Amino acid sequence: MPADAFSGYYEHMTYLSGFHAIEEHIQARESEGSILYVSNPGPRVKKILALADEYGIQVQRVKAAELDKMSPDNRGAVLALKAAPKANSTDLESWLEGPLPEQALVLLLDHIEDPHNLGAVLRSADVFGVDLVVIPDRRAARETDTVSRVSAGAAAWVPVAKVSNMARALEQLKEAGFWSYAADMQGSSLPKTTFSAKTVLVMGAEGKGVSRLLKENCDHTVSIPQGGHVDSLNVSVAAGIFMYAIRHNRQRERS
Amino acid sequence: MPADAFSGYYEHMTYLSGFHAIEEHIQARESEGSILYVSNPGPRVKKILALADEYGIQVQRVKAAELDKMSPDNRGAVLALKAAPKANSTDLESWLEGPLPEQALVLLLDHIEDPHNLGAVLRSADVFGVDLVVIPDRRAARETDTVSRVSAGAAAWVPVAKVSNMARALEQLKEAGFWSYAADMQGSSLPKTTFSAKTVLVMGAEGKGVSRLLKENCDHTVSIPQGGHVDSLNVSVAAGIFMYAIRHNRQRERS
Repeated sequence: MPADAFSGYYEHMTYLSGFHAIEEHIQARESEGSILYVSNPGPRVKKILALADEYGIQVQRVKAAELDKMSPDNRGAVLALKAAPKANSTDLESWLEGPLPEQALVLLLDHIEDPHNLGAVLRSADVFGVDLVVIPDRRAARETDTVSRVSAGAAAWVPVAKVSNMARALEQLKEAGFWSYAADMQGSSLPKTTFSAKTVLVMGAEGKGVSRLLKENCDHTVSIPQGGHVDSLNVSVAAGIFMYAIRHNRQRERS
Repeated sequence: MPADAFSGYYEHMTYLSGFHAIEEHIQARESEGSILYVSNPGPRVKKILALADEYGIQVQRVKAAELDKMSPDNRGAVLALKAAPKANSTDLESWLEGPLPEQALVLLLDHIEDPHNLGAVLRSADVFGVDLVVIPDRRAARETDTVSRVSAGAAAWVPVAKVSNMARALEQLKEAGFWSYAADMQGSSLPKTTFSAKTVLVMGAEGKGVSRLLKENCDHTVSIPQGGHVDSLNVSVAAGIFMYAIRHNRQRERS
């Protein structure tokens, strides 16, 4: 996670660097007071420049190295937001009232306190089309600028429900027809697991894993086969692998 | 990546938190002057305490919150190293002289400049038993304490070869019977790709991807099917998914 790159005066800004993210943000008219930074614009960046012009967004040309300091992910354009995008928050009850998609993937994040990890998980959740992310309202990393920044802007789109009781949230999801899978070092092998059309994936904090009560209430425990010296993957890498495997597993089911 | 957790006086130390990593480090007698911090020791930590006693490692009891500041990954024990573990460096020529394993996975990291990303990739490389990581000797992130720390100590075990010419390194690997796969947004679908027993995976920098010359010299381009608003996965998450998919793909081949 490129935390170093955001030190100093970059620390308190939020930067979008994904082309879609920038375009959607401009078109949603959420970018008042924001500045679009560009360097050596190629055709794709020129399209964004035209859009910025249309919506009256201020533009500044900078050197590539300057863009890299704002966001190492950039491809020639960075939108510096005056305010962090609001998380797309919802509540579990109204989300469950539906209509629910035929195939739904919910992430239940137990004690992922570190905002860098939460941001990285949200970014992957956006890429893999996760339908809902459930986090505890007190203990998880706050939706700070860090989360939004590390998520590369995804925090603004991924629906997030904060709940006061994670075990109760799991029960509600199970009552709504979801099958639950806890990521756990002692679980069955991920490559051999077939996931339900309505799946809740429960991920715990690095090192500590999913808390005992939650784990006992899950239908299955699943693990990524691992070797090596360091005992476990980074939680955001593990979460990405799970999301990939679940999406791929279902794609095979459908075809 | 838990960069925040290492601010202040933690910044210049290296912490191992994986149980295996700690044990191997102590047994390799590389921990002179290091301190083992523990909180509420469970049976696994008690085993490490006995080892520390046997090898004369200094031990300190601290609160769990203190351990979390050193390493959010910890499970009750952290080994604070006086010196960062040396990267397990090798050179490509002597590695290729073998003997090479029947199935080999080499990662060729093109321009992954950010030390947090490189550290996270090395951590996953250790977990998935990558045989060799090749990085450019000038442009990639230096093997700083950051790399070692973010890798959770894996940097000390994953064989890393630095080369002056990445295109030449790719040629040498191909001449040695490797097939090469570039991670690329326009590639064929990862879940549908079968990898060779001797595989080189070429990963580029976030946003920029693999440089044109390298990509043109790869046998295949492969991509992770992605949707969402943020355009792409974090490079360490993407690398983790590739390593998982390659290892799993071959396991199926074998069985």
